[in-house]
Amino acid sequence: MDFKSRYGEWLNLINQSLEAYVQEKNTPEKSIYRSMRYSLLAGGKRLRPVLALAVCELLNGDMREVIPFACALEMIHTYSLIHDDLPAMDNDDYRRGRLTNHKVFGEAQAILAGDALLNYAFELMLSHALSEAGSTYKKTKAALVIASASGAGGMIGGQVMDIEWEGKRIEAEALEHMHKCKTGALIKAAVVSSAILCNAGEKELEVLEKYAEKLGLAFQIKDDILDIEGSAAVMGKEAGSDARKNKSTYVTVYGISQAGHLLDRTIESALSDVIYFGEKAYFLKGLAEYVAAREN
Amino acid sequence: MDFKSRYGEWLNLINQSLEAYVQEKNTPEKSIYRSMRYSLLAGGKRLRPVLALAVCELLNGDMREVIPFACALEMIHTYSLIHDDLPAMDNDDYRRGRLTNHKVFGEAQAILAGDALLNYAFELMLSHALSEAGSTYKKTKAALVIASASGAGGMIGGQVMDIEWEGKRIEAEALEHMHKCKTGALIKAAVVSSAILCNAGEKELEVLEKYAEKLGLAFQIKDDILDIEGSAAVMGKEAGSDARKNKSTYVTVYGISQAGHLLDRTIESALSDVIYFGEKAYFLKGLAEYVAAREN
Repeated sequence: MDFKSRYGEWLNLINQSLEAYVQEKNTPEKSIYRSMRYSLLAGGKRLRPVLALAVCELLNGDMREVIPFACALEMIHTYSLIHDDLPAMDNDDYRRGRLTNHKVFGEAQAILAGDALLNYAFELMLSHALSEAGSTYKKTKAALVIASASGAGGMIGGQVMDIEWEGKRIEAEALEHMHKCKTGALIKAAVVSSAILCNAGEKELEVLEKYAEKLGLAFQIKDDILDIEGSAAVMGKEAGSDARKNKSTYVTVYGISQAGHLLDRTIESALSDVIYFGEKAYFLKGLAEYVAAREN
Repeated sequence: MDFKSRYGEWLNLINQSLEAYVQEKNTPEKSIYRSMRYSLLAGGKRLRPVLALAVCELLNGDMREVIPFACALEMIHTYSLIHDDLPAMDNDDYRRGRLTNHKVFGEAQAILAGDALLNYAFELMLSHALSEAGSTYKKTKAALVIASASGAGGMIGGQVMDIEWEGKRIEAEALEHMHKCKTGALIKAAVVSSAILCNAGEKELEVLEKYAEKLGLAFQIKDDILDIEGSAAVMGKEAGSDARKNKSTYVTVYGISQAGHLLDRTIESALSDVIYFGEKAYFLKGLAEYVAAREN
């Protein structure tokens, strides 16, 4: 199987699973499901769940065990976008090519839809952890990896720094730390949680962690470059929004040309990490190249 | 031990545990811990964690196993208050006798502090579920009970109805359903999760569930009565805010006198439920009486 067809196959699998997990219900609180689905099923690259499935294939794991966790990762990512887009935060009107959640459902509903997606991610992981008593420990451990990555010491901590540092000049080191938390932590958790579910050995886990850290960094550098060079139509959100908000990015700190070099070096390093897995790493290699080449 | 001294003892235990779990850190994202602590350590009745500890004592369970879950319940309750108080939601300025979170830290930080408390509740429960391999299944099950109660089918669903029905006349049945979700679900989860952790038998669980449902209902009726009759100074939040927001309450639906009767009947019924446990139910009885008599 080549990278591109596999990506398409897994995108479908994830989208179908997300659709099935969060269904519209005809209950008094039904509007919450509508607003959760609006953002969750709006497309997107599905980077985190795809990564989890890729690690599962690489390690010959059981896809049925990983899918709920892959979907939980996407729910957590989506909730963070909904809250990030709120007027009190980044105040963005477009996301994934459509109006942001609060623009359609109002701020109150958007706050609650985000809360509900975060909460549901845990409901989903916990109920799967209990589905077969023999694997509860392993699955609870995978859920904890994801919980730690998405909390105050990870993603939320990164969002806090992002807000506090708006309009301030920050050093390269602080920028890297912020992104390690804000986007890197959950990307790494996608890899590590799947590796735990698929019984990775110590060395395998070590290699995968290194790869994931570089992929997360490359993803962010590319994001910052796209914010300058990208087209709003392709990206599904407005370009130039970092500059408008006076945010420090890899481009403002390094300049566009140095940021490009840093991106290339990071991708090369990620590619060389996974040589360890030989041909089985075809997808992780393809994904690293895709992250660098993507236009949205 | 009498009810009042035991309550005081457990309040201290919970406040100390919460304080220890969410510590200030000298990290770049430190402000998130400050805003989490601001609301979490602002006092409050600690009804949910106290209930969990009471069930533990009743069933001769291990307090050390229940405390992390009791604290997680309070974190979830606190996050829901922070988000509920936001301008886009109830727009309240005071809570637990002090300015609301967003009034002190700004809206962005308040949204993130709420997110972080919800997320941390799960980190805490999951890490304790893994602390002794033998009890992972039971603890994961207790965490799932709490997750289901706090999600779209429980507390968040109740908040959605509360917002949607603002300014509308609703029937008694709808009001009861809304409150069963908004406040009842998490109160019941406090009892049920602790009962699971303490290996309750089937009959014990059944009795405790009935009691918890009535306690939750009584708590809400009393809340609605206090909103009319209470003093802001004693309550720590403004009185009359339901009326100002045109919310349906037990008082608007039944009238103040009928609401009082309903409260009395609900408490009596809760008291008769726990006769099953004999003298060991002294705290659950005391708590039911306290809920009806409280002034804040």
